[in-house]
Amino acid sequence: MPVKKHNFSAGPSILPEYTFERCSQAVLELNEMGLSLLEISHRSDEFVDILNQTKELIKELLDVPSSHEILFIQGGASMQFCMIPYNLLPVNGKCGFVDTGTWSSKAIKEAKIFGETHVLASSDDKNYSYVPKEYNIPENLDFLHITTNNTIYGTQLKDLPKTDVTLIADMSSDIFSKPVDVSKYGLIYAGAQKNIGPSGITLVIIRKDLLGKTGRTIPSMLDYQNYIDKESMFNTPPTFAIYAMLQTLKWLKEEGGVPAMELRNETKADLLYSEIERNQMFDGVSEVEDRSLMNVTFRLKEEYKELETAFLKHCERRLISGIKGHRSVGGFRASIYNAMNIKSVMALVHCMEEFEKANN
Amino acid sequence: MPVKKHNFSAGPSILPEYTFERCSQAVLELNEMGLSLLEISHRSDEFVDILNQTKELIKELLDVPSSHEILFIQGGASMQFCMIPYNLLPVNGKCGFVDTGTWSSKAIKEAKIFGETHVLASSDDKNYSYVPKEYNIPENLDFLHITTNNTIYGTQLKDLPKTDVTLIADMSSDIFSKPVDVSKYGLIYAGAQKNIGPSGITLVIIRKDLLGKTGRTIPSMLDYQNYIDKESMFNTPPTFAIYAMLQTLKWLKEEGGVPAMELRNETKADLLYSEIERNQMFDGVSEVEDRSLMNVTFRLKEEYKELETAFLKHCERRLISGIKGHRSVGGFRASIYNAMNIKSVMALVHCMEEFEKANN
Repeated sequence: MPVKKHNFSAGPSILPEYTFERCSQAVLELNEMGLSLLEISHRSDEFVDILNQTKELIKELLDVPSSHEILFIQGGASMQFCMIPYNLLPVNGKCGFVDTGTWSSKAIKEAKIFGETHVLASSDDKNYSYVPKEYNIPENLDFLHITTNNTIYGTQLKDLPKTDVTLIADMSSDIFSKPVDVSKYGLIYAGAQKNIGPSGITLVIIRKDLLGKTGRTIPSMLDYQNYIDKESMFNTPPTFAIYAMLQTLKWLKEEGGVPAMELRNETKADLLYSEIERNQMFDGVSEVEDRSLMNVTFRLKEEYKELETAFLKHCERRLISGIKGHRSVGGFRASIYNAMNIKSVMALVHCMEEFEKANN
Repeated sequence: MPVKKHNFSAGPSILPEYTFERCSQAVLELNEMGLSLLEISHRSDEFVDILNQTKELIKELLDVPSSHEILFIQGGASMQFCMIPYNLLPVNGKCGFVDTGTWSSKAIKEAKIFGETHVLASSDDKNYSYVPKEYNIPENLDFLHITTNNTIYGTQLKDLPKTDVTLIADMSSDIFSKPVDVSKYGLIYAGAQKNIGPSGITLVIIRKDLLGKTGRTIPSMLDYQNYIDKESMFNTPPTFAIYAMLQTLKWLKEEGGVPAMELRNETKADLLYSEIERNQMFDGVSEVEDRSLMNVTFRLKEEYKELETAFLKHCERRLISGIKGHRSVGGFRASIYNAMNIKSVMALVHCMEEFEKANN
């Protein structure tokens, strides 16, 4: 095996070696069938089995109730920003959003094309460093959209808003990182490229009774009902991405499932946040109570600001990759998704300690 | 290397070993960078370079003029069925279609959601076994849509309709199989999973001056202009599929480019159609003048019909895979895309000869 880097990339991001090894093999030959995974028909028994296994495993790992359907859709979370109002916002309906960053804002922009869109709360005033908690939710909304984890800012929703309005959640960057009560949501969606698999596939979990009520004519490829009726095979799905998703979920199950991931993620986050607090040179970016367990944002204190490049270089020498912060926040961001081993977090903590000793 | 089958699958379909080997390696580690292809950021220098190389190679191989832009979009050709009218059919505009099979029909269905859609000709009367040639094209159409190769029926368009109306072509199953004059088209699109790469990515080549004229508000992920402005990176693209596309196109260039593919494809098709004509037991399905060089449809003559399963079993014993015809045509279909070696076609021909000797 090659010397691996500690990959703190925000997405596409680290996946288990288990996934890499099995995908690499399947690209040469799948299941000793004399064909590559990439060249088999999506209607072949082998692929249909892969798709069904993936669905069943998601159902099992997230305890998805029978009221909900599991769909695989191309186009990323960004495509969901338009599919959600297309399918769930009636003509003359109303929807609400909590604006917790770039991705919420993009979802709001698309919803406005389709109808009346209310931003109920926003943390824009402090560059999205916290999650708004006190706000009024009108009862007549057709849905309320939230983003459970904000990859760029390093904040995470800890408590669901209390409401009877249908909840829609973008869980792109924290799905499978901790248990979630699927029955509380009308729709959950997640671009795969954090905890699920490579880019090119989006998981959607939808409560079936919500559909068919908008009065809109929906193009086939944007119509959730079509994905339900054709079991995500109306046309050719991204077969490789689905196979990779299956491997990642198999690994997750072998590691103990979602509760084991939660423990593991809390341990990693604790380790890193403790070092950020202890270390004289660094500060956290987001409010302590809203800190994300997936994306840890931090920066050098004002007096050390000019050492930013030096710290990045130091990290690079220690084989630490992908910790430069997003341009809209600056500083550093360590994404510590499910697949990241605690040893990589320890390597980063050690790096921060070394840097403090050398410069403080 | 494992014993490989002769893969005649219609799609996802055979790709070069070159692609399988390089993709398999990159999934373990890309360019000795200590990271897998699947876990690197799409904004990383390495991936941006992969995307740019892919675009440049397409430009070179198809001689794409500067009036046209190359885009990578998720969702398959089926997503294009809705994006095309969304972007190119003005409110109160008119578009025309030539109906040459299932895929044309699906495109027509989506266009009707957006506006006045005329079917100018159809070969539906003979189960799409030919390509209509004589039909009137109204000059006031905003575009005329054609399908250059019909995967299911085994027909292919040999001459472009003569018209000044903007031409839009679904080339999913014959792009890169022979030279094409891109300048004659307003838009060309192709799902990757035949001659380009694995499923999960669609190539779109669009004449830029066609955009911005519909009076519609287009959601971001469905707006070609957005893909142009953001160089197909408005959101995370399917990184693996694009890398695999690059490998397939590199192989194609090494093999002599598109003209070499045309020669190779003509030779393979000649060999197979000659055997279908010579063999006492088989008949071709499509009209001789409209025969596809990519998908060869054939069947047992009426008197041998009951031997269909026996022939499929005989093929299987000879490691020939994926030749069962589509349910709407029956019989057999051998898809002989670019990556298929002539030896595989010879194996199929030999199989047909053996079957004739044993049964006739």
